[in-house]
Amino acid sequence: MDDDTLLLTMLFDFFGDLLTDKQREYYDLHYNEDLSLSEIAEKAGITRQGVFDVITRAEESLKEMEQKTGVVRRWRETRKGLERAEIVARELLTLTGPDGASAALARELVLTLEKINSEL
Amino acid sequence: MDDDTLLLTMLFDFFGDLLTDKQREYYDLHYNEDLSLSEIAEKAGITRQGVFDVITRAEESLKEMEQKTGVVRRWRETRKGLERAEIVARELLTLTGPDGASAALARELVLTLEKINSEL
Repeated sequence: MDDDTLLLTMLFDFFGDLLTDKQREYYDLHYNEDLSLSEIAEKAGITRQGVFDVITRAEESLKEMEQKTGVVRRWRETRKGLERAEIVARELLTLTGPDGASAALARELVLTLEKINSEL
Repeated sequence: MDDDTLLLTMLFDFFGDLLTDKQREYYDLHYNEDLSLSEIAEKAGITRQGVFDVITRAEESLKEMEQKTGVVRRWRETRKGLERAEIVARELLTLTGPDGASAALARELVLTLEKINSEL
């Protein structure tokens, strides 16, 4: 996935429900269900150009929402820091060994960070 | 701040720029600049009821955006986990003392989590 596609995927995940029903439907069919513009056009009974326009408008909306809220940018920065934190916590747990108070805290940290990262 | 006000404050922070200019302006004057509805009405040259309607619509929009995206809910959960992680990392640093490999890792963890939490 190139950077722009990845950004759009995250944006759709965050803001997809703020699009119009038609934008969300065509966007989803094209990018998530991998249907071609012509296939969507046939299903929907409109022109290929019509489908293209709806999807293009959806992409513009998603990018505009990101420009105004910065949600994905903030989320990505947090995620980068958290992935690093999880690695460090694991190294720490290796150093403490399995027993004792430090090990218990290190294990709690690993589990907490793992949980947060899996939900991000 | 009660729960609803806190939620609206976070929503305005995330989604304020997705409101209309007028919604954003009146909302900001009322909740952030602490102007009364009558004061805003006088400045804007409309009725108090008109201001009330715009702000009510802004609140509904913000809550609808949250209902559709869950951004604030996800953010809050992440934040709660991260605050706990920072506390655990600090306890760990107390146990490791200032020197050695474990201490270096624990210190990196504290700094990383501190940075993430201050930016959330």
